[in-house]
Amino acid sequence: MSIDTSLDAAATITEADIFDAHLGGKLSVQSKMPLTTKRDLSIAYTPGVAQVSRAIAADPALAATHTWASRLVVVVSDGTAVLGLGNIGAAASLPVMEGKSALFKEFGGLDSIPLVLNTTNVDEIVETLVRLRPSYGAVNLEDVSAPRCFELEARLIEALDCPVMHDDQHGTAVVVLAALLNAAKVAGKELGQMRAVISGAGSAGIAISEILINVGLGDVVLVDSKGIIHRDRDDLNAIKAKYAAITNKDGLIGGIREALDGADVVVGVSSSKFEEEDLAGMNDDAIIFALSNPDPEIMPHVARKYAAVVATGRSDFPNQINNVLAFPGIFRGALDAGARRITSEMKLAAAYAIAGLVQENLSSEFIVPSPLDPRVMPAVSAAVQAAVVAE
Amino acid sequence: MSIDTSLDAAATITEADIFDAHLGGKLSVQSKMPLTTKRDLSIAYTPGVAQVSRAIAADPALAATHTWASRLVVVVSDGTAVLGLGNIGAAASLPVMEGKSALFKEFGGLDSIPLVLNTTNVDEIVETLVRLRPSYGAVNLEDVSAPRCFELEARLIEALDCPVMHDDQHGTAVVVLAALLNAAKVAGKELGQMRAVISGAGSAGIAISEILINVGLGDVVLVDSKGIIHRDRDDLNAIKAKYAAITNKDGLIGGIREALDGADVVVGVSSSKFEEEDLAGMNDDAIIFALSNPDPEIMPHVARKYAAVVATGRSDFPNQINNVLAFPGIFRGALDAGARRITSEMKLAAAYAIAGLVQENLSSEFIVPSPLDPRVMPAVSAAVQAAVVAE
Repeated sequence: MSIDTSLDAAATITEADIFDAHLGGKLSVQSKMPLTTKRDLSIAYTPGVAQVSRAIAADPALAATHTWASRLVVVVSDGTAVLGLGNIGAAASLPVMEGKSALFKEFGGLDSIPLVLNTTNVDEIVETLVRLRPSYGAVNLEDVSAPRCFELEARLIEALDCPVMHDDQHGTAVVVLAALLNAAKVAGKELGQMRAVISGAGSAGIAISEILINVGLGDVVLVDSKGIIHRDRDDLNAIKAKYAAITNKDGLIGGIREALDGADVVVGVSSSKFEEEDLAGMNDDAIIFALSNPDPEIMPHVARKYAAVVATGRSDFPNQINNVLAFPGIFRGALDAGARRITSEMKLAAAYAIAGLVQENLSSEFIVPSPLDPRVMPAVSAAVQAAVVAE
Repeated sequence: MSIDTSLDAAATITEADIFDAHLGGKLSVQSKMPLTTKRDLSIAYTPGVAQVSRAIAADPALAATHTWASRLVVVVSDGTAVLGLGNIGAAASLPVMEGKSALFKEFGGLDSIPLVLNTTNVDEIVETLVRLRPSYGAVNLEDVSAPRCFELEARLIEALDCPVMHDDQHGTAVVVLAALLNAAKVAGKELGQMRAVISGAGSAGIAISEILINVGLGDVVLVDSKGIIHRDRDDLNAIKAKYAAITNKDGLIGGIREALDGADVVVGVSSSKFEEEDLAGMNDDAIIFALSNPDPEIMPHVARKYAAVVATGRSDFPNQINNVLAFPGIFRGALDAGARRITSEMKLAAAYAIAGLVQENLSSEFIVPSPLDPRVMPAVSAAVQAAVVAE
């Protein structure tokens, strides 16, 4: 393990460091074989390549083994919800997507390219990826705004015979669950007895609610900018209405303070803030995940007064909830197993695998592995593959 | 210069050599910066990358300098005319497109990715590339069948504000012209006095006719599977009808033998064969380019009986007409110059640049540089850039 444990690493980064590193883009395509002799050219290109093309035409299954496509992850975005920057468009989203592709290679051992689209029309995005289907092996959706992201992901899963995952939803949800599994141990709480409040009902909030319901949490209460989501609200979009029906068993109404009263867990995935008075009503040994970046809903040293375990999305505080713990291993496992879908079982398996890596040193300040822990991807990938086999 | 001059290099290549080299595909994506510390992650991904995205959102011109897209060549095919294999489909075309992308990197210093589409509808291909426009910087069309390729290229040039070139057309035409410029010197012929016969009126045949007309050849006569193309034929598609009006000044009719009678040049770009009796009627010191691969229209040692200069598309005979002499430098020059179009002037400049590299050793067996001659790409790129400036 080579882990940079300096907590202020980011503080030493200048604007020049960042812009210099981005000059010319962050990705490079290489030939895997040398192309320096006529013989090389005759193998990689004409006439040799014709034999491979002819073989694939005769047996399409050979495309999976003799091209790069079947293991190529396309990082797809329309630039409508980029980091905390909002709808900045496809071109401006590209540095993020290049970074994501770089992470796929570095942490997942998978080749990856960004495809950013200057359309935000769900039909058109689906159609585009269907037409390009022979070019890639999996789709990582990124930074697509809610609620369009839910329809887009569902439509792509239907249309494409390959793994599709919106990482802002499910990557986040998997790591939150991994962290919660260990936080519950530290706090001495049972999953089935806990009530979790999710502040934010966008892509991450909905997916976190889904995975917490799937893992058997006692109850989940979603809170959006209008307050607690409950069955009687008439201002809910389709996905929120769906979750109104399966969350908030006690029919709570009100705002974040009412939601937190008697809650065991709060996960912040919006840009709103938590007041100390809001948190004061939580149960003893509460768990607070304040995941907004770069400014958490509440700073950890304040949150700690009301909680047994605190986590954020930042690398300069303990317990960083970072998607890179999940998506490389999930995609790698899915592709290695030849899975056509990324199922709920595979996501749960990924979360348990991540949580399982910190049993020895488990403490209130160490509930998830470092993003740089080299054990993470193999463990997640193996767990995901095992889930595929079990299904 | 490091040139493999062994003429039988290809002969030592086994099927296993070829298939082993293609296992897992031929391309790999790499991060240009290391991603091994938290600091690296904070620069390449969150939070650092947000500064670059925000900057591009404020000033879209920065996308050209701070992402990889503006210099990324997409190699686009629908798999309808793959090498000599015909319409084998997108998936089976992918090894060829991967090879092409590898050549772009090796010979052009440009990153490149294949995008293969499972639609052959021109509208849909154009629409797909328009939607993906923020993802790339230039389009190399490859192995699209005629006559669709003419409409597709024209439509893309209209729709996209970046260089677009169908290499099977124009890359071939540029190298043929380069070879012809030098062959004419060897044969002691003037361009304006020569009549050239083009056997094959598909993508390459049409583009070769175009460039030979543009360079001022005396006359060009196109021959397709039905015979000489002339104004009175009623079976011509739109592009052939266009060329019937601007070629064949003497109104020749008949087949290849009638076309060759008194011709100075023949360029074969179909799968048909040349008979010795066909060639016997050509003018003295004729020029024969038999470019079909892997089987030339006539073997060089036979053609030599009727010609001062013979060229083929094969690496194991002298005078290989190989597109790799042209496309890397054309795209590199266009992108370096910030050109939005690849114009006729840029193609002519590329041809003269290639021809200019063999003046010292010019002979009947050495009319074009080796594809591995490292002077080629810089010379072509510089000539193309100069043409952009001149326009």
